[in-house]
Amino acid sequence: MFRTAELGRTVSKEDFDVVAGPLRIELIELQQKLRAADFPVIVIFAGVDGAGKSETINLLNEWMDPRWIVTRAYGQPSDEERERPHFWRYWRDLPPRGRIGLFLSPWYSQPLLERAYGQIDDARFDERLSRIAAFEKELADDGALILKFWMHLGKKEQKKRLKTLEKDPNESWRVTERDWTHWEMYEDFIEASERLIVQTSVAHAPWQIVEGSDNRYRSLTVLTAIRDAALRHLEAQKMRNKLVHTLDAKQKKQEEQVEQAAVEAGADVEHASGRQILSRLPSILTALDMDKSLSKKEYSARLQKGRARLNGLYRAAKAKGISSILVLEGWDAAGKGGAIRRVTAGLDARDYQVIPVAAPTDEERDHHYLWRFWRHLSRAGRTTIYDRSWYGRVLVERVEGFATQEEWKRAYSEIRDFEEQLVEHGSVLVKYWFHVTPEEQLARFKKREETPYKRWKLTDEDWRNREKWGDYEAAVNEMVERTSTHACPWTLVEGNDKRFARVKALETYCEALERRLDGEK
Amino acid sequence: MFRTAELGRTVSKEDFDVVAGPLRIELIELQQKLRAADFPVIVIFAGVDGAGKSETINLLNEWMDPRWIVTRAYGQPSDEERERPHFWRYWRDLPPRGRIGLFLSPWYSQPLLERAYGQIDDARFDERLSRIAAFEKELADDGALILKFWMHLGKKEQKKRLKTLEKDPNESWRVTERDWTHWEMYEDFIEASERLIVQTSVAHAPWQIVEGSDNRYRSLTVLTAIRDAALRHLEAQKMRNKLVHTLDAKQKKQEEQVEQAAVEAGADVEHASGRQILSRLPSILTALDMDKSLSKKEYSARLQKGRARLNGLYRAAKAKGISSILVLEGWDAAGKGGAIRRVTAGLDARDYQVIPVAAPTDEERDHHYLWRFWRHLSRAGRTTIYDRSWYGRVLVERVEGFATQEEWKRAYSEIRDFEEQLVEHGSVLVKYWFHVTPEEQLARFKKREETPYKRWKLTDEDWRNREKWGDYEAAVNEMVERTSTHACPWTLVEGNDKRFARVKALETYCEALERRLDGEK
Repeated sequence: MFRTAELGRTVSKEDFDVVAGPLRIELIELQQKLRAADFPVIVIFAGVDGAGKSETINLLNEWMDPRWIVTRAYGQPSDEERERPHFWRYWRDLPPRGRIGLFLSPWYSQPLLERAYGQIDDARFDERLSRIAAFEKELADDGALILKFWMHLGKKEQKKRLKTLEKDPNESWRVTERDWTHWEMYEDFIEASERLIVQTSVAHAPWQIVEGSDNRYRSLTVLTAIRDAALRHLEAQKMRNKLVHTLDAKQKKQEEQVEQAAVEAGADVEHASGRQILSRLPSILTALDMDKSLSKKEYSARLQKGRARLNGLYRAAKAKGISSILVLEGWDAAGKGGAIRRVTAGLDARDYQVIPVAAPTDEERDHHYLWRFWRHLSRAGRTTIYDRSWYGRVLVERVEGFATQEEWKRAYSEIRDFEEQLVEHGSVLVKYWFHVTPEEQLARFKKREETPYKRWKLTDEDWRNREKWGDYEAAVNEMVERTSTHACPWTLVEGNDKRFARVKALETYCEALERRLDGEK
Repeated sequence: MFRTAELGRTVSKEDFDVVAGPLRIELIELQQKLRAADFPVIVIFAGVDGAGKSETINLLNEWMDPRWIVTRAYGQPSDEERERPHFWRYWRDLPPRGRIGLFLSPWYSQPLLERAYGQIDDARFDERLSRIAAFEKELADDGALILKFWMHLGKKEQKKRLKTLEKDPNESWRVTERDWTHWEMYEDFIEASERLIVQTSVAHAPWQIVEGSDNRYRSLTVLTAIRDAALRHLEAQKMRNKLVHTLDAKQKKQEEQVEQAAVEAGADVEHASGRQILSRLPSILTALDMDKSLSKKEYSARLQKGRARLNGLYRAAKAKGISSILVLEGWDAAGKGGAIRRVTAGLDARDYQVIPVAAPTDEERDHHYLWRFWRHLSRAGRTTIYDRSWYGRVLVERVEGFATQEEWKRAYSEIRDFEEQLVEHGSVLVKYWFHVTPEEQLARFKKREETPYKRWKLTDEDWRNREKWGDYEAAVNEMVERTSTHACPWTLVEGNDKRFARVKALETYCEALERRLDGEK
């Protein structure tokens, strides 16, 4: 695999100078075009020590406008980073749309080292690589252009290069004891690298192996590759965006035609396509027993008991650095706010944060939709309560058409991947859907209208959402089907009786904490 | 995950009858549209025993035109199938473009059983599922529409269903001892199924969980889902094809513009973009020592020795059921044919086949490009020699523009996946690139022109290919970089001296057989 990068290819200074001028102009122009684009460019440099990764990054920063470039290198994770799932450090560094991110040995570096040192076996290595592949796929699906350069040197060449660096007083600091240790382990690194490249080279994020020995050859190869790929991606994205939107529109039209055809074939309008019949059928929500309730007395007793129980449990969890993530979804006026207050009453204000999720900020809009949830993940031992969450992607964004069908359909696996990382990191994840019947919701809306200090809670949007009850119900049903797994189950809360709902929410959280703490033992 | 499929949803006969008429017409019309489409539809049915998988398949065959439907169910693999890599049986059953394939419990069934019975652990199960995911991705990338229905029944519901079937004299044969054993293992199956669905539900091949208890509900759900997905896919494919072709054309134009801009900025036309400079640099081919040769005497001696050695080795391999696959690629007139004859001289004619790979047949063109190579895989213990191969995808198809950039770029990992399956199955895989210098090729072309009985070997195409030497060289270089792995390495054959080349080819095959047989011990 690496034979093709040990050919001793060089570019003469003369040749290089001829191309350098126009290439520089092209790269600057490209950057201007990218600024208006709706995707980020993510360039990854990895490979053999001394093969010119940082030199190339420096050149890019020199030739292009560094204001629109984000450059990141990674050493050992900080305390802050260690207290969160591993990929948190990478998510927070992702460039927004329109920018270029240059990543020096990012997510690949740690698994590669561990494999070369024999700390993990092939199976575990593959598992780590497939997590990386999923991460890159999510970014690419969101439109990102991902370029990965593997800088290579033969074993002899690497030795020569390290020696040269050592002799140069300005560069000798670059060469450490560790570099020589790794040079001794050259074959181990090469074997692991081959596996890494094979497993993670895909069409949307291919590796390009670059011979690293000649400065000019390497620079020219990488810079022209970035230019060409970016120009192509600019075109591709434009067309792809058009494609998905047209598709959604066409499907809508098609559905109308199907219905029309059915009517003409003699079917009742009501029944026209199979869809209406199917959409009238019971969902997981209508199957709930909505008569569940608690007496005032039982409510008080259980609430008080639950609060004390939670307080003890969360302190025990905190002592062990176990975080909690609570996700509250549900109909408007289904009682999420009230439940949150009953839960937080059992916590210390320093240890939790409530994140009300509304429309994303400008900055958030310029990133992958999961980015804003990653950034809010708290340090170890804290509780983060999301009042609405990433599930907006498959609920409101789906129903209102803010996300294309492509987008919300692939969100299920993106969300599973995200939640899996939370749970693997050791966090407790509790997901609630607060359900009320349409009748109960109507009664609550009316009451809000009548109560002056509650009126602000009711917006026109609430009434509009109500009209789409059936669409939302179908979306909730599919959401539960797709994302309620053994590791991250949904809790459906029968919410017509507020007392019952609050106690159920509180006790469910307690049970989840208990299970997690039992697992610790 | 399965709660949403235990709601007891039913569709009344009245409702069903209203929809059935128009839906039938739509499905028939859809089939007509599909026949002209350039993709196959692959529908997979899996799930709980007794949940109506075969009934749904029967209904589809009844309502649609079965001439354009391929229906397949899988039991234990036959002898024929066992002697080939596992996926061979599925590849050969794939429907061509324009047809619908209905697959009853295909590739998912075996891993699920093994996991439920505890014969494999989660890690091994995941590995199996990721092979499936790669397979489906290849088909989807090639345009296939993939629909997967998971038919579900709750435990009680399944018992009821099995009892009902047992009581019906016409259906009782359907229920076996094994069904009841599996019913006892219900929870094990459900747990494994959840994992299966989570791991293999992706946007291009999503699972849809279908409540199986009510006949009409199930039928309506599946049939409308097929109709809607197929209509959407028809549109999507049309637009996607346009997209990739436009992109390739636009890129070509862009490259010209880049060159033009460079010229205007004062660069020499020769040097215009960085590309020309890079393409003039040495490749893995120019790095070969083309002076290697053998004297006539040494040639005769080593050839004879090699032939005898091969004969012994291949008989030993045959006795153990080990197949060989030889892939010969190389420049026109580089001596592939002569080498093949030297190799086959050591084999028994009953035990090998030479597959000359030219343009695909009509039938082959209607399938994934790897399909025609899968179908030729021989039974255990045989040698299959491909004179040109699947590498055409990244060589001639790339250079001549027969494959789009999207297509040949993703071919590297498709090919790796294919070859990995050959090697995992235990076959010996040897890949040769026969190299000659352009000067030597010219001399051979001229000689062919002058020798009457060799003239037929030389075509206009050979001359045309010669003009694109540089493009082919770049393609070969990248091919070796991407597909020469530890498990499936390329052998580059220095072919200016025919004697040297033949002996190297023969001896390389012998060594590969030896290594494989040593591994057996």
